[in-house]
Amino acid sequence: MAKQTKDLNDLFHETLKDIYYAEKQILRALPRMAKNAQSDELRQAFEQHRTETEGQIERLEKVFESIGKSPRGKTCDAIIGIIDESKEVMEDFANSDALDAGLLAAAQAVEHYEISRYGTLRTWATQLGLTEAASLLDETLEEEKRTDTLLSKLATSSVNNQAKAA
Amino acid sequence: MAKQTKDLNDLFHETLKDIYYAEKQILRALPRMAKNAQSDELRQAFEQHRTETEGQIERLEKVFESIGKSPRGKTCDAIIGIIDESKEVMEDFANSDALDAGLLAAAQAVEHYEISRYGTLRTWATQLGLTEAASLLDETLEEEKRTDTLLSKLATSSVNNQAKAA
Repeated sequence: MAKQTKDLNDLFHETLKDIYYAEKQILRALPRMAKNAQSDELRQAFEQHRTETEGQIERLEKVFESIGKSPRGKTCDAIIGIIDESKEVMEDFANSDALDAGLLAAAQAVEHYEISRYGTLRTWATQLGLTEAASLLDETLEEEKRTDTLLSKLATSSVNNQAKAA
Repeated sequence: MAKQTKDLNDLFHETLKDIYYAEKQILRALPRMAKNAQSDELRQAFEQHRTETEGQIERLEKVFESIGKSPRGKTCDAIIGIIDESKEVMEDFANSDALDAGLLAAAQAVEHYEISRYGTLRTWATQLGLTEAASLLDETLEEEKRTDTLLSKLATSSVNNQAKAA
């Protein structure tokens, strides 16, 4: 029997496993980022995003279910690298007034990774006629974009100005 | 003498080194992605982005110069992870009609990392009163956003439809 060639359905499933793993890593990283945040606003933003991330993981589980697969993650080197950079900034700028600016930058790198993945997955779901999956992925994509906008606002307002004024 | 606390200037410089390293890795990765692309449109997009990346590296060197520093990179785990994922998709989907879709997804993950980094750096440059740096970073940010828009268009048009029709 000839080996079956992989298609867009396989790519969709593989990428779904990638973001499922990534979301779980983000869920683990957020409490540490919240604990290190200097401003109340940023801490609250991280805590709120943690709750959102729990919802996003549940939504991904529904996407797996909608294509008849069990929710399973696979190691995502990209998110590991991005989260490692946030750890580095927490160490290197531990006693600095610029710590929040560094945490915000790390969080926005995380958001942009998610925005790219959810955008891609939603496009593929639509092309594959996976209506339910497309709708679930779109919901999370919009949520991630709102979070990125909130973080951008924080970055241009008080958080970084503290660092500048220091 | 008490150890000097790091400030936003240091964070700006560190993050500049991060994206300088990242751009150089991207410059090395793009020819392989172009070579693997199945459609002429995608190959051309990668080749064009390679030329753009050369310009972006030169622009970063001007930013280093504007703050009186020598251009130097530092290992960026995030971009290594993202590029590793593109290599994985090129191996796993080597003979698949979904290869271009996978390459597009990888390229968009790269773009979004860059968009987040340049957005952050431009905000900090403005806050630090680094007018020349802010202007150079803004130029690249707009270029990256245009590239992402172009890749999104390719992703929703012919490239993935070939995979679907396969």
